[in-house]
Amino acid sequence: MTNPAATKTKQNTTRDRFLNGKIEILQPSDEGHRSGLDAILLAASLPADSAGNLADLGSGSGVAGIAAIALRPKLRVLLVENNPLMADLASQSSTLAKNSALATRIKVLEADVTLTGSKRQKAGLLASSFGNVMMNPPYLDAATNRTSSDKTKADAHMMGFGGLDAWMRTATCILKPGGMLTMIYWSQSIGQIIAATQGRFGGLQIMPVHPKADKPAKLLLTRAVKGSRAPVTFVPPVVIHNEDGSFTPKAAAVLSGDDFLFHGF
Amino acid sequence: MTNPAATKTKQNTTRDRFLNGKIEILQPSDEGHRSGLDAILLAASLPADSAGNLADLGSGSGVAGIAAIALRPKLRVLLVENNPLMADLASQSSTLAKNSALATRIKVLEADVTLTGSKRQKAGLLASSFGNVMMNPPYLDAATNRTSSDKTKADAHMMGFGGLDAWMRTATCILKPGGMLTMIYWSQSIGQIIAATQGRFGGLQIMPVHPKADKPAKLLLTRAVKGSRAPVTFVPPVVIHNEDGSFTPKAAAVLSGDDFLFHGF
Repeated sequence: MTNPAATKTKQNTTRDRFLNGKIEILQPSDEGHRSGLDAILLAASLPADSAGNLADLGSGSGVAGIAAIALRPKLRVLLVENNPLMADLASQSSTLAKNSALATRIKVLEADVTLTGSKRQKAGLLASSFGNVMMNPPYLDAATNRTSSDKTKADAHMMGFGGLDAWMRTATCILKPGGMLTMIYWSQSIGQIIAATQGRFGGLQIMPVHPKADKPAKLLLTRAVKGSRAPVTFVPPVVIHNEDGSFTPKAAAVLSGDDFLFHGF
Repeated sequence: MTNPAATKTKQNTTRDRFLNGKIEILQPSDEGHRSGLDAILLAASLPADSAGNLADLGSGSGVAGIAAIALRPKLRVLLVENNPLMADLASQSSTLAKNSALATRIKVLEADVTLTGSKRQKAGLLASSFGNVMMNPPYLDAATNRTSSDKTKADAHMMGFGGLDAWMRTATCILKPGGMLTMIYWSQSIGQIIAATQGRFGGLQIMPVHPKADKPAKLLLTRAVKGSRAPVTFVPPVVIHNEDGSFTPKAAAVLSGDDFLFHGF
């Protein structure tokens, strides 16, 4: 997302405001590691009355997780990020004056989301300890579109099926029974989303995100309940831009922090 | 679909008009075997310029297949139906005066869609002989929602995964390379749709069908190209009813035969 409020704070870092200035986040100037629109859509997709512990897996600089708690006063977030530089930026962001009202509800954990078993536990990701998990995993590269399930976690950044499956396994472990996973992911990977949730989650609610009303969705927002047996539903989509490129009223309200997604679902 | 134009023609049968009276179809009065809205949405989802041979698998009384050729003058249809009574009604419909302009482009084949190999061939379903296949398979019962892949074809009417898979296998066989499958199916079975198309079809275009703008989609219209490697896309949804229960302009135009779905996709 182009952010006109971005200002350089030091070399290679910008200080970006989100939710109509409610929060401020330090991000690398490098485009590849910047969050924006997707992160805010994700943050707006948790239930409005969410409370307790939230984990933001692969939080990057923390835009999504910090936005989520800014929107829900009863939620605390653990930002889980493997890249030390990104985790450090997230920690710095939590101490910015603009975010002072949120600081006590933010923790940062430098850890690999794809760890398993006792290693995951030792890293600080405890089983059945979160009511909510959110994630925006890196998207699979279109050219490689691999789906083999034997890819190693070293390949997780490539996000073949093995990658998404490893993220989903951790989300399942750390969620309480009945806890909710909220994720945003590439729409062309719907098969991977279905496969990786199978036997772990149910009650999937899928919301296509259309860049314009007449364009295919590139992203899917998905909510899923740990242990549920309820069927998949497709909820009405969200459209981001009007024909002239401006934000639709719904998208503008969500990006300003004045509205949520998944109303009534 | 409630059809005010329906009139009893003989005991247990009605004569129903579709596409604003362009076609007339004999249907059993028995609700369980009647077609309507879904069939017309399916018929409107084939590309506008479709030509050549179309197979309507599990055609029932032929509403979808006959509507499809009424909308596309260069298309011929083979209505494939295993139930002798339904196949007979389809044959009778093709001889109705109202459909006289279409009669030479309609054939009926009484055959089991789930046949395989030489049995399928002997029944008259020839490999690589159709440019288009359409189907509206019976939906899986919510209570049983089974997905095991070893279900026998005797269970096909239950439409667990084995059932849909068998229909998809026949569709794949009889389509020419690059031919298009167009189907309408229960949205909660998205996982089955993805699994049953895998390795057979690509370029899936999925259109959720919402009963109202703020209600979840119950059905998905899906187009898929035999042998394609292109990724899945979610195209903008279609909404059937306004808040007051009347048809939306788009739905009304489609049901009248004045508009198609999947415009520009």
